[in-house]
Amino acid sequence: MGKMEVERKTTGWAARDPSGLLSPYTYTLRETGPEDVHIRIICCGICHTDLHQTKNDLGMSNYPMARGCREVVEVGSDVSKFTASDIVGVGCLVGCCGGCSPCERDLEQYCPKKIWSYNDVYIDGQPTQGGFARATVVHQKFVVKIPEGMAVEQAAPLLCAGVTVYSPLAHFGLKRPGLRGGILGLGGVGHMGVKIAKAMGHHVTVISSSNKKREEALKDLGADEYVIGSDQSKMNELADSMDYIIDTVPVHHALEPYLSLLRLDGKLILMGVISNPLQFLTPLVMLGRKVITGSFIGSMKETEEMLEFCKEKGLSSIIEVVKMDYVNTAFERLEKNDVRYRFVVDVEGSKLEA
Amino acid sequence: MGKMEVERKTTGWAARDPSGLLSPYTYTLRETGPEDVHIRIICCGICHTDLHQTKNDLGMSNYPMARGCREVVEVGSDVSKFTASDIVGVGCLVGCCGGCSPCERDLEQYCPKKIWSYNDVYIDGQPTQGGFARATVVHQKFVVKIPEGMAVEQAAPLLCAGVTVYSPLAHFGLKRPGLRGGILGLGGVGHMGVKIAKAMGHHVTVISSSNKKREEALKDLGADEYVIGSDQSKMNELADSMDYIIDTVPVHHALEPYLSLLRLDGKLILMGVISNPLQFLTPLVMLGRKVITGSFIGSMKETEEMLEFCKEKGLSSIIEVVKMDYVNTAFERLEKNDVRYRFVVDVEGSKLEA
Repeated sequence: MGKMEVERKTTGWAARDPSGLLSPYTYTLRETGPEDVHIRIICCGICHTDLHQTKNDLGMSNYPMARGCREVVEVGSDVSKFTASDIVGVGCLVGCCGGCSPCERDLEQYCPKKIWSYNDVYIDGQPTQGGFARATVVHQKFVVKIPEGMAVEQAAPLLCAGVTVYSPLAHFGLKRPGLRGGILGLGGVGHMGVKIAKAMGHHVTVISSSNKKREEALKDLGADEYVIGSDQSKMNELADSMDYIIDTVPVHHALEPYLSLLRLDGKLILMGVISNPLQFLTPLVMLGRKVITGSFIGSMKETEEMLEFCKEKGLSSIIEVVKMDYVNTAFERLEKNDVRYRFVVDVEGSKLEA
Repeated sequence: MGKMEVERKTTGWAARDPSGLLSPYTYTLRETGPEDVHIRIICCGICHTDLHQTKNDLGMSNYPMARGCREVVEVGSDVSKFTASDIVGVGCLVGCCGGCSPCERDLEQYCPKKIWSYNDVYIDGQPTQGGFARATVVHQKFVVKIPEGMAVEQAAPLLCAGVTVYSPLAHFGLKRPGLRGGILGLGGVGHMGVKIAKAMGHHVTVISSSNKKREEALKDLGADEYVIGSDQSKMNELADSMDYIIDTVPVHHALEPYLSLLRLDGKLILMGVISNPLQFLTPLVMLGRKVITGSFIGSMKETEEMLEFCKEKGLSSIIEVVKMDYVNTAFERLEKNDVRYRFVVDVEGSKLEA
């Protein structure tokens, strides 16, 4: 299919100041370059990072900002990798340098010049505007096909939380069945952690600070065990039993209780950007050759692999689909952890214009 | 060769109290069991752990204690794996449970019931007495053959410092040539780290707190670079360049400067038992998928492998050979880091008896 006549003006919902409140905002999309994909947005997930960005919690927000990432969309360009009407997705990134050592290893998420899908500046000098909009233009390297038969609103959270969990499990040799894993914290990433670890054939223990999510962890998500971190006798019972723990806690916390749960060669995989330093005692690490590490979203290759894996395993995420005019309420609820487990905005079905 | 008539009484030098002063001490060796090896000791290395143990720094010393490990000896028993007059070595351990998951993986150094070659209690209820003595009796599992052509006094430090460095490099996939490594701290383990990493074909940078050892690191040990940790501009230059750092610093220190030197997937391998917690910031780990880990001596299998590797590469350690009557002075000097780089006691050539 040839080049289509496409609308260059688009409307998205953007934050204008650190209040974080979103409202309609109209801007111009770049010309579709030879390797670009012009995408009509169907839906877009919301995650905690969005919240930080719009409120300028990380001190690096530029306004106006059309927040969002993880779109699932229809293609309208002349790129060979995709054709019009393909259903595709875009994750957290839309650019990288292509020449550094991470890029050469197809690990563009670790490129020092990576470009975020929103609140960043593209190589043409224009701001990147994200997925809370009618349309967007993205280089084909950062566009993935959504597997046939997977619902678009299901795919949206996979493009962020899904690959964030999948990537380290695959990289650290933990994709094989029969392992015992721990998921520390049951938010958006944690819930996906349980689902993906179960699909890999693991025995999964959720470690939480309270009993609030016990029922849903065991029944809805299919976890095998649920333990409160402060339950010392249960924690002692589980000592030296786990091959890995995915630690999704985004605030300062002690590591010793969780390092103790790991067996020889066990891995503590950190997912939370935490501003205060975390601590550990060297003998606890040395005497079990344990590994403290972390991981950051995933590569485009891993994203494709993960989507195929989820389709094959029939894995779905638990989401709450909302319209755009609910988005500010959704962010408020997200801030209070009042969501099971991800909001997805039905962009196509929403009135975006003021 | 059949069972020999062996002397069951032996004399070693032992610490009697936390002063750490050694003096002659006579004790009875156990009967040589079906899988035991009765060993006449030729020489024995000294390391920092010995110092801690005799002074009760770790709060777990039992007196009297015939300090020492890492013997290189002659065999005198009926075990099939060895025959009399073989030259063999014993490392830090002389026992393990044989049934736990580390033991099943031939990683007996991580067995929770491992038995130290001195200052520990053997399965017969008797104290283990180490290598500062005429003779010792050790189960064949914990005895390795010294490769032909390797000098016994050279082998002694390899059985401790050597395998301590070799084991993590082999385990973490860092044995291949072309890597860039850092050695933090240039004591007994650090000096062996430089030697072994160079023999593996790595570009090796020594990171030190002062210029004191620059000459010897570059000239005697063959390091490629030498950098002072507080030299900010040089440290910046080396940022994001290393595949691993072997951190031998045995006291509390900041990790950030060294984590910054690691490239994507780089590994910080801790070797020091440190009583205060170390700290790190999660983004520094996550955004480069870096690994903080540690390792603890090595298995008997790795010890054999390492000895073969060192023989093949013609690798030798830098040692100072002393007689037993110098041992208390040697410990004093060790405490002041006044040794290049390991003391080895010539046990065979020393008068041990009071």
